[in-house]
Amino acid sequence: MIRKINLVLDYDHLSALSAILRTGSFEKAARQLGLTPSAISQRIKALEERVGAVLVVRGQPCRPTLAGQRLFRHAEEVALLEAGLGRDLGEFAGMAKTPSLRLAVNADSLATWFVPAMAAVDAFLYDLVLDDQDHSAEWLRRGEVRAAVTGSSQAVQGCDCLYLGRLRYFATASPDFMARWFPDGVTAERLAVAPTMTFNTKDTLQSRWLALAFAMDISPPTHWLPSSHGFVDATLAGVGWGMNPEILVSNEITGSRLLMLLPDRPLDIPLYWHWSRSAGPALKVLTEAVLATARRLLVQDHP
Amino acid sequence: MIRKINLVLDYDHLSALSAILRTGSFEKAARQLGLTPSAISQRIKALEERVGAVLVVRGQPCRPTLAGQRLFRHAEEVALLEAGLGRDLGEFAGMAKTPSLRLAVNADSLATWFVPAMAAVDAFLYDLVLDDQDHSAEWLRRGEVRAAVTGSSQAVQGCDCLYLGRLRYFATASPDFMARWFPDGVTAERLAVAPTMTFNTKDTLQSRWLALAFAMDISPPTHWLPSSHGFVDATLAGVGWGMNPEILVSNEITGSRLLMLLPDRPLDIPLYWHWSRSAGPALKVLTEAVLATARRLLVQDHP
Repeated sequence: MIRKINLVLDYDHLSALSAILRTGSFEKAARQLGLTPSAISQRIKALEERVGAVLVVRGQPCRPTLAGQRLFRHAEEVALLEAGLGRDLGEFAGMAKTPSLRLAVNADSLATWFVPAMAAVDAFLYDLVLDDQDHSAEWLRRGEVRAAVTGSSQAVQGCDCLYLGRLRYFATASPDFMARWFPDGVTAERLAVAPTMTFNTKDTLQSRWLALAFAMDISPPTHWLPSSHGFVDATLAGVGWGMNPEILVSNEITGSRLLMLLPDRPLDIPLYWHWSRSAGPALKVLTEAVLATARRLLVQDHP
Repeated sequence: MIRKINLVLDYDHLSALSAILRTGSFEKAARQLGLTPSAISQRIKALEERVGAVLVVRGQPCRPTLAGQRLFRHAEEVALLEAGLGRDLGEFAGMAKTPSLRLAVNADSLATWFVPAMAAVDAFLYDLVLDDQDHSAEWLRRGEVRAAVTGSSQAVQGCDCLYLGRLRYFATASPDFMARWFPDGVTAERLAVAPTMTFNTKDTLQSRWLALAFAMDISPPTHWLPSSHGFVDATLAGVGWGMNPEILVSNEITGSRLLMLLPDRPLDIPLYWHWSRSAGPALKVLTEAVLATARRLLVQDHP
């Protein structure tokens, strides 16, 4: 929608690259853009010749090279800047396509408080990447996302950072599980043999809680279950005990379908919102929505 | 627990390898087995010398080489066979450690019907890998899981396969979303501009449904949201329309918090249970529980 004057890159070609990397294939990208696969191929070839580097590793799915990744990021940044321009100039607004916004969010945030924040801002097509809160900042550092919910307060270069509040977890289990594994109370000895659940190899919540509550090294047998709601369902079904977000299990706790292993021992995980300054003012409205939702749903520190 | 007579491999060493590949690091494996990291290192080194190949690519997380993957699989198969032996011989039962069982399941099955099946059999520590139903069989083919819920009826070599039933999906959206994007009905023209949601690049449900319902090529703008419950929450919040499993949204449909785009156009995905014969009889009880749960919760064909 902006006339090409002295542009180094052809933005129609860049759109083809973005579509391939988002959908994973030349065929799907062609369908999304209403082009033939051969037109898509020609655009990528032209772009690769212009840049002097291979941009896409052909495969299932297609993956970007380092150069392709950098161009993908550039295309997203330009689309975000155009969206801001559209808002400011009014007349653009009707013409601009909804820009895509790639974010990294931890699974438990998505399961508990993040969706209302997304839903409050319809200026974007969201492209969500899920990763552990201790690892989501790496996506931002690598330039693969424009913003992230993370557990780290350390600002990433080129990014701003705001504190959101704490996501509170309780170690929970079903009444049957408690009766079977902890008939005489929750002790370190019993915790060493009662099966727990771990989200994936990045998940340290269970071991952090054990270390805090018992000040000793306990390594229980564990199931591996990479799903926030799967965790809750499996806890309810008595498969194991696990750290569940309070927001996600408050009804189950009130209704005694889940019991807390140690009710006075929550584990609070502080969360932060990081966003890239290169995305320009487009992220301002989303940042406000994320902050407002987090203040409403996360545990806030009292003075 | 079985005396080593003419064994080619040291099973204590194999346990160290399994623990590293499950937890992703030498340190966590050491903690899990109650050993020092240097004892773990020595065992892996001994195993690598015995086999004559590198088994673990050191990193965060540690990953197996092809040879490491093969040994990991062997260790799991032996543990499953020992568990069967324990059951049959009785006296072993109390001594045997609970064996781990790695399964590939599609996210929507985990979110809707699979947990009760898992919970009915407590003979295993479950190690769940999530992947699309069109790709979960590949995990079995590569020997990385012992069983899988897949969308494919084609038996994998060395595996048995049973039909489970169909997981029924409806294209759903919030009432506000319907009023905004489909004020004059759900037409191909409006579907080309109304935002949809896609789980990830492997997810073809939305495009399959569009192709079936309209017999034409429609490529709507899409959000990317890799979570079954995130999909439902975002549909409820009006972020986009999406294919949601009927089991997961039946309350929302009954309560009119979600509407079906075309109520007479469900999309049924047939599901199959595949399991490796090399795991021996250990999987028999789980197979029975999976079948019983699927017959109860999935749509069954009527004669």
